[in-house]
Amino acid sequence: MPRRIVIIGAHAAGVDAASAARKTDRTAEITLITKQKKAGYSPCGIPFVLGRHIPSFDKLVVFPPAYYRMMKLDLRLETTVTSISTDAKTVEIEDKSGKQERLEYDSLIITTGAYPFVPPIKGREKRGVYVLRTIDDGEKIDKAIKDAKTAVVVGAGLIGLETAVAFVERGLKTAVVELLPYVLPLMLDEDMAKVVHGMLEKKGMRVIVKHAADEILGTEKATGVSVAGERIPADIVVVATGIRANTELAKNAGITIGETRGIKTSMRMETSVKDVYAAGDCAQSASLVTHRPLLSQLGTTAVRQAKVAGINAAGGYAVFPGCLGSAVTRLFDTEIGATGLTEFMAGRAGMKTIAGTITSKTRPEYYPGALRIKVKLVVEKDTERLIGAQIIGGEEVTQRINALSFAIQKQMTVRELTKADTCYAPPLNETWEPMVLAAEIAIRKL
Amino acid sequence: MPRRIVIIGAHAAGVDAASAARKTDRTAEITLITKQKKAGYSPCGIPFVLGRHIPSFDKLVVFPPAYYRMMKLDLRLETTVTSISTDAKTVEIEDKSGKQERLEYDSLIITTGAYPFVPPIKGREKRGVYVLRTIDDGEKIDKAIKDAKTAVVVGAGLIGLETAVAFVERGLKTAVVELLPYVLPLMLDEDMAKVVHGMLEKKGMRVIVKHAADEILGTEKATGVSVAGERIPADIVVVATGIRANTELAKNAGITIGETRGIKTSMRMETSVKDVYAAGDCAQSASLVTHRPLLSQLGTTAVRQAKVAGINAAGGYAVFPGCLGSAVTRLFDTEIGATGLTEFMAGRAGMKTIAGTITSKTRPEYYPGALRIKVKLVVEKDTERLIGAQIIGGEEVTQRINALSFAIQKQMTVRELTKADTCYAPPLNETWEPMVLAAEIAIRKL
Repeated sequence: MPRRIVIIGAHAAGVDAASAARKTDRTAEITLITKQKKAGYSPCGIPFVLGRHIPSFDKLVVFPPAYYRMMKLDLRLETTVTSISTDAKTVEIEDKSGKQERLEYDSLIITTGAYPFVPPIKGREKRGVYVLRTIDDGEKIDKAIKDAKTAVVVGAGLIGLETAVAFVERGLKTAVVELLPYVLPLMLDEDMAKVVHGMLEKKGMRVIVKHAADEILGTEKATGVSVAGERIPADIVVVATGIRANTELAKNAGITIGETRGIKTSMRMETSVKDVYAAGDCAQSASLVTHRPLLSQLGTTAVRQAKVAGINAAGGYAVFPGCLGSAVTRLFDTEIGATGLTEFMAGRAGMKTIAGTITSKTRPEYYPGALRIKVKLVVEKDTERLIGAQIIGGEEVTQRINALSFAIQKQMTVRELTKADTCYAPPLNETWEPMVLAAEIAIRKL
Repeated sequence: MPRRIVIIGAHAAGVDAASAARKTDRTAEITLITKQKKAGYSPCGIPFVLGRHIPSFDKLVVFPPAYYRMMKLDLRLETTVTSISTDAKTVEIEDKSGKQERLEYDSLIITTGAYPFVPPIKGREKRGVYVLRTIDDGEKIDKAIKDAKTAVVVGAGLIGLETAVAFVERGLKTAVVELLPYVLPLMLDEDMAKVVHGMLEKKGMRVIVKHAADEILGTEKATGVSVAGERIPADIVVVATGIRANTELAKNAGITIGETRGIKTSMRMETSVKDVYAAGDCAQSASLVTHRPLLSQLGTTAVRQAKVAGINAAGGYAVFPGCLGSAVTRLFDTEIGATGLTEFMAGRAGMKTIAGTITSKTRPEYYPGALRIKVKLVVEKDTERLIGAQIIGGEEVTQRINALSFAIQKQMTVRELTKADTCYAPPLNETWEPMVLAAEIAIRKL
């Protein structure tokens, strides 16, 4: 009898898990279940559709219907899983017409993702207040932009800032309100965040940190946000104050939830219950630096975890060693990336660190078009090992983050980094690579 | 008495050695001696001046005269070192007026660089035949371009191709002739080189491999090059068939020359003679992969060796661990980079390898402007360690090479690379990083 694999969720994690399972077991019956109307799209692209860099939301669908047919995947759209029985190894589902069904599984993969967490701001139920997670959300906001002149984004994380940038690009007068002392608090330390803050203001965005959005104003429809007694006009309010793992189904089925509020997993991405795996934004794994639980909630982590879960669920063997949370974005013309721990995070984890920061150029002074780049390295003082990096620059940030991510994963010391062999050509880099220069700065403090 | 440091040569290696020496010893007397009229410029930039990407040759001077004053360096331009006595610890010099002088040293640093090797092609003495090494060479060629319609470059290495691209950009009908079976033979394997070859021809350059330039035609002045019986018209002929280390002075002083024909050095960049150091294009060091002697002759290697030589010459302690020969260039709109060993080089070193090659995109399909990128990884079969990489792509090649260079330096296995944490955002990369995909291809062959 063929192996029956049921996957709850059908986005990055769900579809990549299904694909890996199919490649591992050609005869398995693989069923994907999603509440949404569309499957297999890239939510990371939504802010860039709003900013008109990508022409339409449809373009975000990475896996077209033909893909599921080719891979022999049974995709159930607009279908809800109402419960899981890990004893009986079944899931109860209900489609949009209300029809219920019980599916048996040999392996179950939970890729239920996350939902936008909306703090209890007064007035958050008003029309004109949005979250941004799905294409549905994106389409609503896109429509609202057409009649709007002003916007407030609550939360200066990645999604918040990417959305705020899209609003500015679409001509809205835009403000961002962040409760924490600086923007991108999960990626950057304050010194680096200030550079981003200044850049955003130069581009005409208002950025308010250290303040809560106290109330969303307006009668039925939002007209503004009250911040520290000031009324900031807002035809659109987007609340982007973080996401929370969708763990309700797992919790109800008795599956252990970890300290990060994500589903606890082993290195094989198996949950506390045999034959039940989890991957993606709902799944906790470990930090490669601290070896403590980490809820990474990034697309790259999702697909990597999903692949491991899919292989194991299909009877193969694969291990997910953990993650560093390497992330990057582009805000206007500035690229911002980070990997590993910030100084702040390292301090909270009880690690003593030193940092090396340098501002350099992406090409020699003599080569036209050289752009500024700022590199910060975070180094564990005792071991001299690189444990984190943050980069802000006009170009070539992404792959520098990858380079430093490799270095962290292979336990490179900052002294080794000062000796690293790097490449150079006048149109493409400086002779002395900025990452190496930052390492030089760091070792002076050891 | 202050320490006396004499440096022969005053370009990338010489000036960086002097700077490092000055930072190590504030009171040392540091003398730099160069035959040339200008010091401290970037020869790597010359082809990009010819191509008009950089407005003038003067721009290439990275260290202006004020730098030498600030660093208290005694720079002697247009001065020749005629001999070194390592017993007496002296060098004999002669300036352009013929005035001779004997300088005493406590430490000597030889950064005599390399000279263009011109094979004995019939007619190579004719007018219109050039090499490209110094600004003088560049200025001569720049002048010749103005009256030229056609050009032939002999040699399809980095300098040869960069120069040929400049000729095409300046409107010359240009052909390149390479004796070896493919272009960029020191950087690429044949499969990757073919991609570059095809790209160059698409841009209108003629590229002939596996053939020698048999004769430079013309009466007094070059008018063409004879290749396999065909007369290829050439108002300009550039011979770019490689460089040879300048070791005459060292050899005459009894300093040991290594098997690569570069000056043999220790990890402290000291030669076979105490207190005499060498760095840059004339200095042999070791490959980080094979641990065999390597003559890297790249700007990045030069400055890193020079720094170590400078620190040690000034009484400090520093070690140069070796190099990978990481290199990159841009030819038209294509970036080409490599690090470590090619399959061919690994084979010659007696290593058994497998390769993983993939063609991918630099952004998701849905994000406009995605460019092609081709990644080839070379893996040692027994240890599964990454030992080399070659990348050709429209953007973001340089820092991928650096990332893979770090991976090689830290002995990352190709299996580890398949698990690597990488970063992604729609405008900047694919979810599955092409380097990781290439590793996936490679492990299937293990």
